[in-house]
Amino acid sequence: MKYKIALCQIKVGMNKEENMNKAEAMIREAASCAADVIALPEMFMCPYSNKYFKKYSESEGGEIFNRLSDIAKELGIYLIAGTIPENDGEKIYNTCFAFDQEGNLIGKHRKVHLFDIDIKGAINFKESDTLESGDKSTVIDTKFGKIGIAICYDMRFPELIRKMTLEGAKLIVVPGAFNMTTGPAHWELTIRTRALDNQIYFAAVSPARDMRSAYQAFGNSGVANPWGVFSGKTDEKEGIVYSDIDLDYVDEIREQLPLLKHRREEVYK
Amino acid sequence: MKYKIALCQIKVGMNKEENMNKAEAMIREAASCAADVIALPEMFMCPYSNKYFKKYSESEGGEIFNRLSDIAKELGIYLIAGTIPENDGEKIYNTCFAFDQEGNLIGKHRKVHLFDIDIKGAINFKESDTLESGDKSTVIDTKFGKIGIAICYDMRFPELIRKMTLEGAKLIVVPGAFNMTTGPAHWELTIRTRALDNQIYFAAVSPARDMRSAYQAFGNSGVANPWGVFSGKTDEKEGIVYSDIDLDYVDEIREQLPLLKHRREEVYK
Repeated sequence: MKYKIALCQIKVGMNKEENMNKAEAMIREAASCAADVIALPEMFMCPYSNKYFKKYSESEGGEIFNRLSDIAKELGIYLIAGTIPENDGEKIYNTCFAFDQEGNLIGKHRKVHLFDIDIKGAINFKESDTLESGDKSTVIDTKFGKIGIAICYDMRFPELIRKMTLEGAKLIVVPGAFNMTTGPAHWELTIRTRALDNQIYFAAVSPARDMRSAYQAFGNSGVANPWGVFSGKTDEKEGIVYSDIDLDYVDEIREQLPLLKHRREEVYK
Repeated sequence: MKYKIALCQIKVGMNKEENMNKAEAMIREAASCAADVIALPEMFMCPYSNKYFKKYSESEGGEIFNRLSDIAKELGIYLIAGTIPENDGEKIYNTCFAFDQEGNLIGKHRKVHLFDIDIKGAINFKESDTLESGDKSTVIDTKFGKIGIAICYDMRFPELIRKMTLEGAKLIVVPGAFNMTTGPAHWELTIRTRALDNQIYFAAVSPARDMRSAYQAFGNSGVANPWGVFSGKTDEKEGIVYSDIDLDYVDEIREQLPLLKHRREEVYK
């Protein structure tokens, strides 16, 4: 079975409504190009900064949530809706909602690994100043099989990706926003190796780069195939990346190079 | 603390004695260039073929073993002595012996994951036709700290590398012999990502390429640093790769980007 994924690399601005309108326009464009699964980037409607997460936050069932659900239903697409700052009581999470072709919520991932780093002279960011972390991995059921969802820094942890693979995900989608230090150094390497090691399609979708914003995303959204090669990839500018997801190719690679079958769980303990 | 590793990328021929002499000469050269830890490639004294493993095999304490021990002692170096087909009763293993500066055996790794692959029109190899697999991971203690050892296909399995990292290895050495299909596609990618994900030095040492032999090794021995960048690297020809192993840099990277601290073991179960 083969289906098509589209990654919307949105240039995110300061205005929530405009960001959501941009997202909607790109989703419509991707759907008109026959995408079956459409993904948005991390914090697609909010500047990526601790200053703004609370102010821009919405709850499950809020306005943005309902617009996303309505769009998925109208267009008959699966929507892996990037992330928003989700408020739940006093707490705020970095959350991805996933909708099916009827607009039903079929998955919700809260970022498990918060991004707290301090690279001297380059980048300092501490998500945990404002955000709470999720406490579970997320695999959704679709008519195209199981799809795993993780968020940005989550993809640094091979254990999480392996877990979703062993649960049956043959595509993993990661809304993410690597920066201009870690992006050039690690983004493509990590995408390709997660796909290769797990013999899955691995799709990572970033905001477009905006050199005027406080946090400059690396962009370079792309999909790597189970052989570790990009099957779709863009640069830093706003745009949509398409890739076929060929589940027969996943099976073929796993037959030729049976990595998952050759695991020695008893040795790893 | 900083020390120097040397990877001897040996062109392996049909004659066991000549191969061993070549290994000795290269170890002597590396020691004369102040290498503290010297590593040899997978099957450095035997053609990489199921046809030859039994014929070339030796036991622990055999002639090759004793020569390696004597060289380590004479030169006062740590020797991670590639691999040989090791016979143990009726069984044959793909085994790496490690010697300390006094020539004592301080580690022995038997390849855990046997290389059984069948990529149509490209490469077919089934190690398990002749070899048995090991059943444990291997981390040795040295005066430069803990060093992990794995063999070739073992490096495909992130769980094994993670396990050795969590046991304290800040350098992992992998004698390996990727082929001309998997080598160009996956060798450098895997070396770099294992180093990056685990924030360690990851050294992989291959035989040199010999286009006249039945099994053509990719070569390209190299060492990746904890940021995922090669700190030493060669091409396909015979030669020695050197790299500093800077344990302070390991600590620095782990402080700036605390991946190991941010692991969420409870989520991965």
